[in-house]
Amino acid sequence: MSENFELHAQLAKDSIWLADWPLCQLRLINDSNYPWFILVPRRANIRDVIDLSDEEQAQLWQESAKLSRLLRQKFSPEKLNLAALGNMVPQLHLHHVARFSSDAAWPSPIWGKVAAIPYTEQQLVVLLNEWSVA
Amino acid sequence: MSENFELHAQLAKDSIWLADWPLCQLRLINDSNYPWFILVPRRANIRDVIDLSDEEQAQLWQESAKLSRLLRQKFSPEKLNLAALGNMVPQLHLHHVARFSSDAAWPSPIWGKVAAIPYTEQQLVVLLNEWSVA
Repeated sequence: MSENFELHAQLAKDSIWLADWPLCQLRLINDSNYPWFILVPRRANIRDVIDLSDEEQAQLWQESAKLSRLLRQKFSPEKLNLAALGNMVPQLHLHHVARFSSDAAWPSPIWGKVAAIPYTEQQLVVLLNEWSVA
Repeated sequence: MSENFELHAQLAKDSIWLADWPLCQLRLINDSNYPWFILVPRRANIRDVIDLSDEEQAQLWQESAKLSRLLRQKFSPEKLNLAALGNMVPQLHLHHVARFSSDAAWPSPIWGKVAAIPYTEQQLVVLLNEWSVA
C-alpha cells in the first residue's frame, strides 16, 4: 500500500518535510503567520479518515495527539485547531494550528484569510533542526 | 466528571439535540445549507481533544468514524470535512460536514461563508426521527 504513496503536488509546494512518523509525514506549512503543521498518512488513495483501516485510524489519532502535545509545549497556544478539509487537495491531510487571539485570522479559521508569509531561510533552518528530532 | 457537563449557550442556540452516544451528544447545526453535525463530549472543562483521557479520545474517534460512515451512507458527499476549531466557542465540539462541489461555500471551509438557512419545522421533524435512532 504505502509503496504507492505520493504526496500531492500542492501539498509539496505549500509545505516542508519535517519528519516521518510511523504512519504520517509531518510537514510544516510555509506560512509564518501561524505555527501550522500537517500530518499526511503515507497511504495511497486516501481522501477521508474513514478510508484508513481501523488500526491506521488509531495510529493517526495517536500521532495527532503527539503533535498537539508538542504544539502546546512549544507555543502555549490559546487554542489548537484541528481539521481535515481537503476540498481543494483531496489527499487526506490533517491540519494542526496553534492559535492565538493576537494572530492574523483570529477568531476566524485560518484558511483563505490572509496571504501566507513564507519563512526566511534562517527561520527554516532552526525549525527543521527542532522538528526533525521530534 | 460528566455530572458537571453543561452545553455552551452558543452551541445550544445554534444546534439541535439528536442523540446521546456513549461519550458525545450528537447535534445538528440548524443550517440547511449543508448536512452539518457536531459531536460534543459530555465532559466538563474540555477545550482540546488532548484534554480528554486516552480512553475518551479513542471513544471520541470511534464516534467520529461512526458519524462519518452515517454521513456517507445518507448523503454520499464528495468530501467529508472534520474539524475542531473552537476559537469562538471554546467548549470542544467536533464538526462533521458533508460537502458537495455544488454547495454554498465550496471549495472554501463553511465557517462564516454564507448566512445560515434554518430548517423548517417539517424538515426538523423528519431529521429528528431519522437521527434519534442512529
